Amino acid sequence: MSKKSNFLAVCLRGSGQVFFMENQVTGAFFLAAIAYASYVSTQWAIAIGAVVGLVVATLTANWLQCDQKSIDAGLFGFNGILVGVALPTFVADSAALWFLLVFGAAASTVITSAVASTLTKTWAIPGSTGPFVLTGWLLAACAYSFGGLELISEKPELGTDYLQGLVTIPSAPELLEIFFRNIAQVFLLGSAISGVLVLIGIFMASVPAGIAAALGSLIAMVVAIGMKANPIEVSQGLYGFSPVLTAIAVGVVFLQPSWRVAVYAGLATVVTVFVQGALDIIMLPDGLPSFTAPYVLTMYLFIAPKKMMAPHPHSHIQSDHLLEKS
Amino acid sequence: MSKKSNFLAVCLRGSGQVFFMENQVTGAFFLAAIAYASYVSTQWAIAIGAVVGLVVATLTANWLQCDQKSIDAGLFGFNGILVGVALPTFVADSAALWFLLVFGAAASTVITSAVASTLTKTWAIPGSTGPFVLTGWLLAACAYSFGGLELISEKPELGTDYLQGLVTIPSAPELLEIFFRNIAQVFLLGSAISGVLVLIGIFMASVPAGIAAALGSLIAMVVAIGMKANPIEVSQGLYGFSPVLTAIAVGVVFLQPSWRVAVYAGLATVVTVFVQGALDIIMLPDGLPSFTAPYVLTMYLFIAPKKMMAPHPHSHIQSDHLLEKS
Amino acid sequence: MSKKSNFLAVCLRGSGQVFFMENQVTGAFFLAAIAYASYVSTQWAIAIGAVVGLVVATLTANWLQCDQKSIDAGLFGFNGILVGVALPTFVADSAALWFLLVFGAAASTVITSAVASTLTKTWAIPGSTGPFVLTGWLLAACAYSFGGLELISEKPELGTDYLQGLVTIPSAPELLEIFFRNIAQVFLLGSAISGVLVLIGIFMASVPAGIAAALGSLIAMVVAIGMKANPIEVSQGLYGFSPVLTAIAVGVVFLQPSWRVAVYAGLATVVTVFVQGALDIIMLPDGLPSFTAPYVLTMYLFIAPKKMMAPHPHSHIQSDHLLEKS
Repeated sequence: MSKKSNFLAVCLRGSGQVFFMENQVTGAFFLAAIAYASYVSTQWAIAIGAVVGLVVATLTANWLQCDQKSIDAGLFGFNGILVGVALPTFVADSAALWFLLVFGAAASTVITSAVASTLTKTWAIPGSTGPFVLTGWLLAACAYSFGGLELISEKPELGTDYLQGLVTIPSAPELLEIFFRNIAQVFLLGSAISGVLVLIGIFMASVPAGIAAALGSLIAMVVAIGMKANPIEVSQGLYGFSPVLTAIAVGVVFLQPSWRVAVYAGLATVVTVFVQGALDIIMLPDGLPSFTAPYVLTMYLFIAPKKMMAPHPHSHIQSDHLLEKS
Repeated sequence: MSKKSNFLAVCLRGSGQVFFMENQVTGAFFLAAIAYASYVSTQWAIAIGAVVGLVVATLTANWLQCDQKSIDAGLFGFNGILVGVALPTFVADSAALWFLLVFGAAASTVITSAVASTLTKTWAIPGSTGPFVLTGWLLAACAYSFGGLELISEKPELGTDYLQGLVTIPSAPELLEIFFRNIAQVFLLGSAISGVLVLIGIFMASVPAGIAAALGSLIAMVVAIGMKANPIEVSQGLYGFSPVLTAIAVGVVFLQPSWRVAVYAGLATVVTVFVQGALDIIMLPDGLPSFTAPYVLTMYLFIAPKKMMAPHPHSHIQSDHLLEKS
Repeated sequence: MSKKSNFLAVCLRGSGQVFFMENQVTGAFFLAAIAYASYVSTQWAIAIGAVVGLVVATLTANWLQCDQKSIDAGLFGFNGILVGVALPTFVADSAALWFLLVFGAAASTVITSAVASTLTKTWAIPGSTGPFVLTGWLLAACAYSFGGLELISEKPELGTDYLQGLVTIPSAPELLEIFFRNIAQVFLLGSAISGVLVLIGIFMASVPAGIAAALGSLIAMVVAIGMKANPIEVSQGLYGFSPVLTAIAVGVVFLQPSWRVAVYAGLATVVTVFVQGALDIIMLPDGLPSFTAPYVLTMYLFIAPKKMMAPHPHSHIQSDHLLEKS
């Protein structure tokens, strides 16, 4: 295989890894989903940003001589593609945007490596999209500080009875759209068709992961509507994308599937909906989106617990504290 | 002993562990303190929430097959009881409240286990009420997001000369009330009588812990009034509950008592008053209470230092950094 | 050498360590820079605070019997001196200020020790000025809570065409002033002359560190002006002090210098400018300055990555999770 096609394969796998799938075809479907949403919204900067972010993050990992097997598996690309999608979603096209995007994608690789050397090394906690969340927050926040960057105000697409508060439960067609938007929004895409493409891509790589994604989307929809979350946000799929990731990560990818793990993943998925509601509020004063932070926080907390590890008893610590008598 | 009565004992110990006491009688006194405050304020949801949180958190630990000795000691119950007290204090009674409370109490057990597997395992830092603080923040914040949950506005009880700013030092009877409220507020209770019950409970399990609690309350009162903190908050005991926990934790429970440890605990207790003032401000934009975070942060920082651990010298790091020449 | 002169030497090294230099003459130059700025602004509390913070932090390390070699190297003094400079910069002179400053400087030593026992011990991440940032945030925040502490409103010195927005690029003399203020602001000083003194001090201890400081200041200036950051803040040197520290730390101090490390340090320096812009926004709702947090965060992330550490693959974790089948 030529080096060039090899790099292409690595990038496609990096795309697929956003949903934990080391699969080039899946990655291609995800890129198609992004391209479709860019086409519909005519915001081509998002699709171009995705490719630039993916390429820069992967090249940076090569330059830093990060673990080659991980680079080849696409594990240094998926945070970069998300940075590349997120930035043009919130910041208007300009030279400064692309300058920021290139440095941000490179930084996402350093942060991925930092998380691997700390949380993963010591506690076996997968970094997942945590580096994207941190990079995304810093980039989005600094867009407020620099006159060279212009923030795009979010314009939610409204218009249905559900959104206008006339009915409390969305209609069946709306529920179907929400179901797929919950999946598309992992890539910050509001298009249900993109969600269909993403879900097909997941199923092509792993049937259990596809089922977990579907169940995660369903659970999120039921809990968010039942708790009367903001209908506009529910309708856009903003209450669903983190729970979808949690359902796959906890239920299929990082733990050995079993009935107990399924119940555990169900608990984690419901908790993610609450954490979504919480982080939306907590990030509000800073004017920052929560990105996939609800998934990242919940997943970290649910993957961290280890067998045999007891909480510290309420008695003297047995390590040599500074003030312990020697 | 029958399994049922055994479970009751475990739950009572879980109640006692809020003040580090593995003692059923102490736990019963604490529940009585909660019940009394619920009776006075007619907010029975708080007492019921305490029991539900305690039971759910303990059952979750059983289901997750957490360390049995720790479960029996009540170490998986005390964060649950605090979640159960805190949520109905801030959110009005409704079906959605109880749904949230049950999932929140279950999550507090997962988080307790996550902290044990990370901070405690690697650095011998006790998790203590850290899991409650994190769970409480997420649950309180998400109450703003969901229409199904109605926030209760805080109504501080006012009325004395001290509170009205006519005098700068509270009168002796007021000082006595503050002294006991500082202790009761660990359970988010504003009743001085509840504080008396809690302090009796502590003394029944450990005289040194009782003395530390009393001294912690005194120090907090003097520093808060001396620094001219908001008299309403001082009067309600809101400047005292975290320092009380710090005094017991650092001075008696986690370090071997000695004169040097007593001075160290005194420093930690004063610092906790400052951190209380700081976190009240830092949490303000998010509209979240600081819960026991001032205690948790201060205690983590004062328990973490280990003998022989030097700060990294300002010279090349001796571990294999990514960019080190091989 | 008498004990007294020895303590003086330790304190002077503590001053020098703010820029990673274990050098008494350098430390003396830094104190002169602080004294000069205090003289110009007639805010003598800042110079006195520096000395008090330095002495209290060092004495606390002695009392806690921290690692003697580190104490002698000044590694427990440099966070204390920064606390001592920062507090009187933001809080007006009063008895309560000095009470807070003494306890804050003592706490900075405990926090330095806590960071050494956690981040440094487990991940070889140098604590650097992280303890100052945490202490500074807590002290500055609690100044809002206590009536005994009065906050000083920041009065930026304005007046040039650049600041008034008539021109987009500062004039040559202004650029020179910014170049030196970028260095002086590490000590929260707005005086270009102080920056000259600091830079001389650095060069006396280490020529490579001096060059890195100069390049860091230049890069920060170009990026901040190019991205159109707030001209007032750029002019005061507020966009430059963290990048200066990053350039020295990543390029010279903590990694073995090489061409690849130089490029890496350049990337880190540019990223620090973005993080500066980000943290200014993120800290805004809390009304807190970001201090050296942009440097601390960036440096931690760029020093953490270790060779051979791969991100966790997207497959079952191989450690004994609570729910793993036994």
